[in-house]
This record gives sequence, structure tokens and C-alpha cells, in this order.
Amino acid sequence: MRRVLITNDDGPFSPGLKLLYEAVGKVHTERIVLVPETPKSASGLGLTLHKPLRVKRLRIDSMEVYVINGTPSDVVHAALSIFGEPPDLVVSGVNLGDNTSVQVVLTSGTIGAALQAALEGIPALAFSYASSDPGDIERPEVAEMILRFASKVCKWVLDHGMPPGVDVISVNFPKEPTTEVTVAPLARRRFANALMMRRDPRGLPYYWLYGQPVDPEPGTDVYSVFVEGKITLTPLTLSSLTGPVEALADLKRWLTADRARATV
Amino acid sequence: MRRVLITNDDGPFSPGLKLLYEAVGKVHTERIVLVPETPKSASGLGLTLHKPLRVKRLRIDSMEVYVINGTPSDVVHAALSIFGEPPDLVVSGVNLGDNTSVQVVLTSGTIGAALQAALEGIPALAFSYASSDPGDIERPEVAEMILRFASKVCKWVLDHGMPPGVDVISVNFPKEPTTEVTVAPLARRRFANALMMRRDPRGLPYYWLYGQPVDPEPGTDVYSVFVEGKITLTPLTLSSLTGPVEALADLKRWLTADRARATV
Repeated sequence: MRRVLITNDDGPFSPGLKLLYEAVGKVHTERIVLVPETPKSASGLGLTLHKPLRVKRLRIDSMEVYVINGTPSDVVHAALSIFGEPPDLVVSGVNLGDNTSVQVVLTSGTIGAALQAALEGIPALAFSYASSDPGDIERPEVAEMILRFASKVCKWVLDHGMPPGVDVISVNFPKEPTTEVTVAPLARRRFANALMMRRDPRGLPYYWLYGQPVDPEPGTDVYSVFVEGKITLTPLTLSSLTGPVEALADLKRWLTADRARATV
Repeated sequence: MRRVLITNDDGPFSPGLKLLYEAVGKVHTERIVLVPETPKSASGLGLTLHKPLRVKRLRIDSMEVYVINGTPSDVVHAALSIFGEPPDLVVSGVNLGDNTSVQVVLTSGTIGAALQAALEGIPALAFSYASSDPGDIERPEVAEMILRFASKVCKWVLDHGMPPGVDVISVNFPKEPTTEVTVAPLARRRFANALMMRRDPRGLPYYWLYGQPVDPEPGTDVYSVFVEGKITLTPLTLSSLTGPVEALADLKRWLTADRARATV
């Protein structure tokens, strides 16, 4: 029987996790749920190298859940070490909040877990919903959209494997229910980030990091999720993180020429 | 006068930070040092969204250092909000330990800060040294190599700007001093990660996450740093994280066809 590892970055009590568990259940596979024990939003691909990791088993309603005191990326390595044979598929989410744009994707724990799985050679999917209000994702018609399309994407990838050149398929569901589906590339940025200063009761300054959405550019994932309101699929690849090697030829020449002069 | 923001992921007492501070000093710019107050290795591009951030000023020998209870990526946003005009350059490092391969680069706090700066449109450099033993980087001939080449790379980028298509230049210094410089693309993986189980005095299991190096592939950054022992420059780009959009056409068609049937 095929095995699916289910994880997220919002912790074991997230309604998004419950939905994803149900969605995978429609595909008739073995399901292993292993998630960070506390929410780990914005942990990127971070790993826990300097403290011991503990794994505990919980039962939440009818769902058996393992929790770990680490990050979503730790989950992938923990699952491979603890549960034996690698899973046939890793699914991450459903995140409360979209994961659109390069900026957000590289910071996201949800996508981080999926990218870590891809680095281990395992097909991986990430699911996100464009509202961070738990009341929204629990609306029956929203839950129905997510259940239906998430289970279908899982089934397709289990049947066909990952398409060539694709490491992770990221799926963003719009806030309002729809059956429209599109494929769109990542925008570069989603937020203008800044720190807001406050003062504590002793008069000492502290800061909140927050992001103001920037105007979405047509043709990008941000636009199709937030302006067009479509279910948006985005293929992610790790094979082109190296930039143009020849663009550093001048710098290299200068560093090396200098060496020649220095040794004359 | 040009301004350079200096950060790292090893905290204010790292000998790598001191070296980078000295290297930038040779270029005659204003230097702002802002680093995580505790080591934040492997924090990737993670951000701190759910707790207040505090910034304090320290003096370490002759170096003025600001510290923040956050990640290397937080540093970039904090610097932009707190110190006024954006810096002309962000430099991150010198990390104790290499940052080679896609796998390590995406997990690295050192590279994470540089990529965050690039997302804010600021030229950014990351410097790493291929040994995590502080005794190695403090060897005079190693320190000399790093001082000389790091200052030259900073000077070149301040004079010429970033080359087209390049978001971050990552520089990895080999363990043994050299004057040989090369440009190499990222390997995909550097480590096979796994969890090692131990038992505590009460007999309960806990785990350490660790990585075993994989064989370096010729032509990659891992190979040029560890086998050839060369100073290795790697251009990083964020513009190609979107994979082939057409590779998802079949999946999209299937999801949409299903919708058509369902609504008949």
C-alpha cells in the first residue's frame, strides 16, 4: 500500500492539517502524520542541529498524530529515520495563509518541508489557503473545494509521478470557493516588510516585523490567487538556483590578475 | 560615504564576524554590524513574526555591534527600518562551515540574510569558510586569505554593482590557504541527513539530526572547495525558482475536465 507523509507548519491542531488528512484519506493510502508540536510559520527550510529532538504520539479525534519539537524540515528527516521505507509522497499544509511569490515561498515552513522532501528525492506537494483566519477555512464550501482538489492533485501525482523538471507542486487556494484552476509562475515579492516600533510599560522599545502587501503583477501567482480568485498551481524547481556563471568572469579575472601581480 | 551592513548567523562573538568587519574596513566605508544575539545556524530564510524583537548595542573590542533576538533574515528588515537609508551592500559571514550545494544554501542563515537583502533590491554577498572549528579560521594564514579576498570582492561589487542576473555572490573559502579562485555552480546535495537515536537517563529516546557528506561531483562548488581546495565563487539567482509551467498542463486539464463533467 502506498504511504503518504502529511506535515504542516501550523502544528497538530490546525484545521488545515485535518482537511489535508481527510483529502489524502480519499486516495486510499497509508497516512503518517508528523508535524512540529508548536506552530513554526516562516521557518523556511530551517533545521534543528543544536538540540535534541523528541517525538511524541497524540490522538486528535480519530487522527493519530506524531509531533516533534522541531521544524517542518526536521519532520522530513525524522520520518525517513523513524518510519522505515521512504513515503511515496510528502504533502504539506493546508497552510493558513497563502504561499505565493519567491519571497514567501523561501520563508515558508510549509513549502520548506516540501522542498526538503524533494531534496531527498521524494515527490512533494504543498497546499495553502489564502486566509489566515481559521473561521474561513472551516466554512463548508471552502473545505469542500480544498478536499476535492487536494485529493485529486494527490491522486494524480501518485498515479503519474512528478512531471519532469518539477521538484514541488505548490497549490494555493483562493479565499472564496471556486472550481477554476490555473497554472502561474511565482511573483518575486508579495510584501514590503518593515519593523513597527512600540514601547513596553518600562518605556523600552521593541519591534514587530510585519508585511504590507505590494500590488500584484498580472500573470503571477499572487495575481491569480488574489485578483482572479483561482486555484493556482505553481511548479517549483531547485535546479536553477545557480545564476549565470559567466557573469562572474570579470570578477574572477580581477581577483586572479591581482594574484599574478602580487607574486611577481 | 557608502554604507555596508555586516551580519552573520553565528552571533556577535564569532571570529568570522570579526574577520568580515576587518575585511570591509579595508574598503573605507561606513560599517553597521547587526547580528542575531545567539547563533542561528540552519535558520534558512526564516523570519520572526510571532514575538517582539529587541535590539541592543554592544561593544566587542573596538567593534560596535547591534544584536537582535531574531534570525539573520530579520536583521535585514530591522536594519532597513532602524538605520534609515538602505545600505549600499549587505555582507553576511564569514560563516564557520561551508555553504555549498542547493541543500545547504537554502538551509543556511548566512545565505538566507543575503537572499533576503537581494529580495529588498540590495547587492548582497555571503562568505563562508570550510571548517567549523574556530581554531582553523583564526590561523594567521587563513585569516590573511579571507581578509584579502573578501575585501576585494566587496570593493569590486561596490565599484561595479552586481552582475546582471545575479542576486547574491556566495564565496566559499577552502580550509587550507590558497590564492586560486574559481567560479562553480551549486551541487544539489552535500549531506545525507539522518536522525541518530539516543536514550536519556530515564530511558526515553531522543534524536540528533546530523549529516554525512555525500561524494562530491566534479564541476560543482562542493568539489572545487573540498577536492580542489579553491576559493569558490557561486552566483545565486532567485529568478528561476518557478519550474516549467507547461509541465503542469496535463494536471490542470484533468482537474478542469473533471469540473466540466461534474457540472453537466
